[in-house]
Amino acid sequence: MKTTIEEGAPVVTLINVFTVDPSKQDALVHLLDDATEQVMRHLPGFVSANIHRGLDGRHVANYAQWASREAMEAMLTNPDAQHHMRIAESMAQAAPILYHVASVHRRDGN
Amino acid sequence: MKTTIEEGAPVVTLINVFTVDPSKQDALVHLLDDATEQVMRHLPGFVSANIHRGLDGRHVANYAQWASREAMEAMLTNPDAQHHMRIAESMAQAAPILYHVASVHRRDGN
Repeated sequence: MKTTIEEGAPVVTLINVFTVDPSKQDALVHLLDDATEQVMRHLPGFVSANIHRGLDGRHVANYAQWASREAMEAMLTNPDAQHHMRIAESMAQAAPILYHVASVHRRDGN
Repeated sequence: MKTTIEEGAPVVTLINVFTVDPSKQDALVHLLDDATEQVMRHLPGFVSANIHRGLDGRHVANYAQWASREAMEAMLTNPDAQHHMRIAESMAQAAPILYHVASVHRRDGN
């Protein structure tokens, strides 16, 4: 299973960086996995979620792609999604920001 | 040109979220593009850099992949890389965090 990052792809990207106590990092990763599989993945416009574990133990990042800003904002009003987000926010401080891909650079130029 | 995010890929991921005055967002995107093309791309262990423009005007994120933590840390000591990082830090507040990919979820399960 893989996600692609590409200039001009028809997605918006939500990068959510969570700051978490190291004792709760594992639990937060599992919560985000479960929320994605049980709820987010089935919502209109969901494209991908990519959960990252900080090497410092104190952060978790979700790099998520949605088909449009409207689809992402509709997710925020979904009761099941809100339920999971409330649990995440009780465990960690979230910093979600919405982006467009500006440029992609690779070593090999491909 | 595209980047892939995959569980178990032999990379570490540096997500650097910059907070910037909206009047400087464009300049920061261009600086990161130039730094990547002129310097980072040619350093040992560079895999990809993916520059993201915040829809709020106030953020820029670099989702960068390196072959190893050691390669990323060696970059931090490179004088040309340091030169570009100093300019970026004079324009914006940087919040770099290093991650491993924990999981990838897609709508279609592929």
